[in-house]
Amino acid sequence: MARRPTIKDIARRAGVSESAVSFALNGRPGVSDGTRARIRRVAEELGWRPDSAARALSGERVGAVGLVLARPAHTLGVESFFLQLVSGIQEALSAAGTPLLFQVAEDLDAECALYRRWWAERRVDGVLVVDPRTRDPRPALLTALGLPAVTVGDPRPAPPLSSVWADDARAMVQVLDHLAALGHRRIVHVAGLPDLAHTARRIDSLRIEARRRGLRPDEVRSVPTDYSDAEGAAATRRVLCAPRPPTALVYDNDVMAVAGAAVAAGLGIPVPARLSLVAWDDSALCRVTHPRLTALVRDTAGFGRLAAEELLAVLAGGPPRVRQAEQPRLEPRESTAPPPPAY
Amino acid sequence: MARRPTIKDIARRAGVSESAVSFALNGRPGVSDGTRARIRRVAEELGWRPDSAARALSGERVGAVGLVLARPAHTLGVESFFLQLVSGIQEALSAAGTPLLFQVAEDLDAECALYRRWWAERRVDGVLVVDPRTRDPRPALLTALGLPAVTVGDPRPAPPLSSVWADDARAMVQVLDHLAALGHRRIVHVAGLPDLAHTARRIDSLRIEARRRGLRPDEVRSVPTDYSDAEGAAATRRVLCAPRPPTALVYDNDVMAVAGAAVAAGLGIPVPARLSLVAWDDSALCRVTHPRLTALVRDTAGFGRLAAEELLAVLAGGPPRVRQAEQPRLEPRESTAPPPPAY
Repeated sequence: MARRPTIKDIARRAGVSESAVSFALNGRPGVSDGTRARIRRVAEELGWRPDSAARALSGERVGAVGLVLARPAHTLGVESFFLQLVSGIQEALSAAGTPLLFQVAEDLDAECALYRRWWAERRVDGVLVVDPRTRDPRPALLTALGLPAVTVGDPRPAPPLSSVWADDARAMVQVLDHLAALGHRRIVHVAGLPDLAHTARRIDSLRIEARRRGLRPDEVRSVPTDYSDAEGAAATRRVLCAPRPPTALVYDNDVMAVAGAAVAAGLGIPVPARLSLVAWDDSALCRVTHPRLTALVRDTAGFGRLAAEELLAVLAGGPPRVRQAEQPRLEPRESTAPPPPAY
Repeated sequence: MARRPTIKDIARRAGVSESAVSFALNGRPGVSDGTRARIRRVAEELGWRPDSAARALSGERVGAVGLVLARPAHTLGVESFFLQLVSGIQEALSAAGTPLLFQVAEDLDAECALYRRWWAERRVDGVLVVDPRTRDPRPALLTALGLPAVTVGDPRPAPPLSSVWADDARAMVQVLDHLAALGHRRIVHVAGLPDLAHTARRIDSLRIEARRRGLRPDEVRSVPTDYSDAEGAAATRRVLCAPRPPTALVYDNDVMAVAGAAVAAGLGIPVPARLSLVAWDDSALCRVTHPRLTALVRDTAGFGRLAAEELLAVLAGGPPRVRQAEQPRLEPRESTAPPPPAY
């Protein structure tokens, strides 16, 4: 089996000593200019490069950034959000020739252990931190380690961390504006995991807006799920079968919205005549269902690109910053209409 | 900003010389057992670890594997196939504590350059090679470099490479069995990129099976696309508007199948009464369309898991092997039925 070319290979091919090769390649005195040029030519021919080990020991940058995802690996394939995010991250990193070190971890503890390890072992220059929590141990750890990081989705990162974020509270107001203008007053938000910071912001925003508009807190409320189609369907069935059911449902992702539409169809509740549906993230799924789903459209790939660009800027010596992604835009389609007059 | 703990930090904290620390941590003589124990305790407290640089120089494994994807980054978010594959890869790698170095490259040349670089710089111990081509420069390069690799989707890898693959030819036979049993004799395969080896195997299989069954080669054929919904829709419109249109369409991915279903609806061609549709890869998309799409169901995450496990086995010293993934299974749903009697 072939090997990586070594100093020894270069020495043999160039007919010089290994220390001469070392002097030549490290730009140290001890060899003539002619010999240095010849050694460098041979090294080039053999495809030799200083390895990341040697470069790291010399204090150079590692040239890779990290991303840990603390979710069960099998849930990765469910939502299009994460793939879109990673595709945007890759667009920015590829342009910079920077690979992404990517690992799925069991939980936040395992994620933190990976940060410690990757940093101590010089595997990454910095990390992108996703899925901010309402109580999050990661910012303090990253700051203590001195590991450069950009948080994805945190509007108020702990200094000196950088962040890119989207205004989920404002997006929820847009959704309520749309539904209230149609006449809805009984609205259930089928929320994702409530310990995720962006879910918490949506829940808070719904509560504040409902109060501001004089809507009843028992009739405009959030119910938490784990983001899966199964829990989205179960929550839909539960609220639709209760007394005084909602006339509109707002889902925290596309998969739950589509599952909820199927539940409504199964219960014989026509959409949008008796029930309006809104999906938080638009995707191909939302556009192929019948009726097509009213959805919050945002540039998720662009969000990932922004995050990666910000991390590269930090690594280049830029100051910590908080950057806001483009505001999501509500695209009304066929799944929202005025509530039935009887209600 | 905090730093990674160094030998110097440990020496200062433990009140010993730097060489004593080096002796103690590298298991060399020169310090007493008591001092060695104390130094190790301090190193532990400070979170010190031998960095990957030092370990690599000592010839140890790097502890990461690589994956390069030579596709435009923005197309990543389109298909669920790749995300499912990566989720399976991550399941196996996470269990082994091995991170994945992941980069999107512009083309095969850029992919090959990354292999050279990652190997020379000791960034990876091995790579997973995806999207095998009909003419593929990568196996020869990897063999020449001596970079351990597992090819994903190649039934006949160049020795000594390992491979995991799925039997696309046999799957195409299953699809034709299903459609022929219903009575279809005019079938168009809306194929993906024909320079991908698995697409070529599907196209060959269709041609061979059509001949074996005495079907006309101008009425049972493949038309190539780039896998996008746009080209899938365009190809569908073209063949449906031609004289003697097909009574069945077979799509190489879910996105094109759903786009094709929308084109048929737009042309007023009812599915399945006048046109049957089959999607190669099942996904949530296939199950939420009306009618729900007959699809080839396979365990893509399991395929990714198998590939990663095989690479880990090779890195552990196992022999090169060719392993076949579970055979895809055709799940008939509402989009396939006998062709109309008039045809």
